[in-house]
Amino acid sequence: MIPRGFRFGAARAGIKGPGRLDMGLLWCETPASVAGVFTRNRVAAAPVVLCRERIVRGTARAVVVNAGNANACTGEAGLADARRLTAAAARDLGVTPEEVLMCSTGVIGARLPVDRMEAAVPALRASLSEDPDPFARSILTTDRFPKISARSFRVEGREVCLVGVAKGAGMIRPDMGTMLAFLATDAAVEPPILRQVLARAVDRTFNRITVDGDTSTNDTVLLLAGGAAGVAPAEASGGLSDLAEAVEGVCRDLARMIVADGEGATKVVEVRVVGAADEASALRIARTVAESPLVKTAIHGEDPNWGRIAAALGRSGAYGGGPFHIAVGGVEIVRDGLGLGPKAEAEAHRAMTGREFEIRITLDEGAGEAAVTTCDLSAEYVRINADYRS
Amino acid sequence: MIPRGFRFGAARAGIKGPGRLDMGLLWCETPASVAGVFTRNRVAAAPVVLCRERIVRGTARAVVVNAGNANACTGEAGLADARRLTAAAARDLGVTPEEVLMCSTGVIGARLPVDRMEAAVPALRASLSEDPDPFARSILTTDRFPKISARSFRVEGREVCLVGVAKGAGMIRPDMGTMLAFLATDAAVEPPILRQVLARAVDRTFNRITVDGDTSTNDTVLLLAGGAAGVAPAEASGGLSDLAEAVEGVCRDLARMIVADGEGATKVVEVRVVGAADEASALRIARTVAESPLVKTAIHGEDPNWGRIAAALGRSGAYGGGPFHIAVGGVEIVRDGLGLGPKAEAEAHRAMTGREFEIRITLDEGAGEAAVTTCDLSAEYVRINADYRS
Repeated sequence: MIPRGFRFGAARAGIKGPGRLDMGLLWCETPASVAGVFTRNRVAAAPVVLCRERIVRGTARAVVVNAGNANACTGEAGLADARRLTAAAARDLGVTPEEVLMCSTGVIGARLPVDRMEAAVPALRASLSEDPDPFARSILTTDRFPKISARSFRVEGREVCLVGVAKGAGMIRPDMGTMLAFLATDAAVEPPILRQVLARAVDRTFNRITVDGDTSTNDTVLLLAGGAAGVAPAEASGGLSDLAEAVEGVCRDLARMIVADGEGATKVVEVRVVGAADEASALRIARTVAESPLVKTAIHGEDPNWGRIAAALGRSGAYGGGPFHIAVGGVEIVRDGLGLGPKAEAEAHRAMTGREFEIRITLDEGAGEAAVTTCDLSAEYVRINADYRS
Repeated sequence: MIPRGFRFGAARAGIKGPGRLDMGLLWCETPASVAGVFTRNRVAAAPVVLCRERIVRGTARAVVVNAGNANACTGEAGLADARRLTAAAARDLGVTPEEVLMCSTGVIGARLPVDRMEAAVPALRASLSEDPDPFARSILTTDRFPKISARSFRVEGREVCLVGVAKGAGMIRPDMGTMLAFLATDAAVEPPILRQVLARAVDRTFNRITVDGDTSTNDTVLLLAGGAAGVAPAEASGGLSDLAEAVEGVCRDLARMIVADGEGATKVVEVRVVGAADEASALRIARTVAESPLVKTAIHGEDPNWGRIAAALGRSGAYGGGPFHIAVGGVEIVRDGLGLGPKAEAEAHRAMTGREFEIRITLDEGAGEAAVTTCDLSAEYVRINADYRS
């Protein structure tokens, strides 16, 4: 299901530490249409600035990625570093610098080791293959596993393939794109349509997960369409909606993997709100519950502590004050605002011992429905983040 | 400095567990003016509903408090429980039920053990004394120490005393009042003026602390003025501003103690923003930084990880994008958006090994200044909250 015309590479530049892959390259053999979604954080990293500048062209050939250093809060010098590296990659690949995008992830505030990174470019190019796995490994930081998802579907009898690769485990509360995710398809798609497809998918997937409520300075999602499948999905034939569905499906897979790999996480929980005044209200309530440290620690302790869920509902600013019902893992524990007692809670507790379950809040205030995927808050999260740089 | 005319009591009703004080009584020998500030959480507890209903009268004689059970999400039955208990206390104290307020704190969703609590009322009355310490202990839940602060000042030659008692360690991100705090003064103050004084003090103190960003269902701050000092602080004489200053001072002391006693907390940090567009912007930035789990874990790890501070600034929604400077513990580590290097950070790290320090963000966007007091996020916080009910 790897899209034709794309190649993936990985190399070691000594950014993350000895022996670890820390540079990645996504390469398209022909100019690809490209769409991108970036962090809304006002403190945007140099590679985000560079991508925003270059992506308006609508096409790209390559994306250079590094992990271990975010190249954020590095000022003009950091932007010059990104330009120098993409220029070096462009020379090596025989394309123009404007056709090369760059993404970085890691510690904020340190300069990139540009010399070592530039020296790694030939090895990066030499490593290009159809296997996305080394690339997926090279972009990880505190992640525990690489994140890859793929789909294929047929348009006018031709197979269209789509692959997505992501990283992310902390500073996750996307407000546009999240961390780094790269999607590539061999369908032929014009940039304006590609942008629409990506924006919608990101809004419904990456923008509805949370690990710790912290929006990163580097969040980036790129979608490249190379065209090697020899077919352009159109609205009339239903091909475009197949593509949109595939993109959303891959984004959802990757988003879920990011939460499952959330720093210190042991559980993935979907907080679903139904019957809110409207979708925005449902989303706001779901997000408030999903981000509550008290709810997240209760999830960690497998405690169906619905009082904390009710308290988060109450402070969300989107709850109208009417009757509410709460079910955890399919077990109703609150009806009309009142707890159903120890037996129901014991059953909910058993459901919470699983690795994945749902917290469902049902209101009677309208047709608004939304879900946010979250993870538990563990002592391990604190350990990882209290020790990160030292 | 204990205000004349007030008495404090404490007793055991078996709510928190064997041998622990869990009921408190604040008693005024004469009808006291009263002002209250309550949670903005839409899921408000029964005692909050009761207090809101009764406080419009402007006077009260007694406040009954219990810890270990919040009497929240208990519906009409919970409200009836609160009415029954305050009626029992009123009978015992020889006043009307409308003169008795009630506050509860603890687990959400369980009914109060009203029989045991009613049986404890005579012991509660018998325990009344001038010492607020047992009362301060009786209202604690996960708190590690009782919280008492007092002030005195002179009005027209007479000494006016003010004492405040508070509890709170988790579910702390007040959006009006915070958890439970009780202030009593022997000054004579009319209810409308008392309300103004309290609202202003709470807004500048309790509303500017955070432990975990979770606003409770039970937050309540009550200020009672008994009048036994025989003097009414007036605006013209400056007595009123002395009173306002004393109330704000006591609120600030108590708010700081709540943060210092934050669940799992080992450090108290003031996040101060200066030079923001206006005070609201400064407050929003300070709050975003103070609530960031990544900043809070970095504080725990004594890591001057300013990239996380910059990322929180960037996502706050109140940062205009201009130059920013960051100092930690008085040590400048970021100037004009760029890190000042390992030497400055090593010095900042040393400052962070202390129990209290400041994180200062300086912008150049206006005259807005505000501070929010926060604590670190430790593995102990997770342990406390993953185990709370089990």
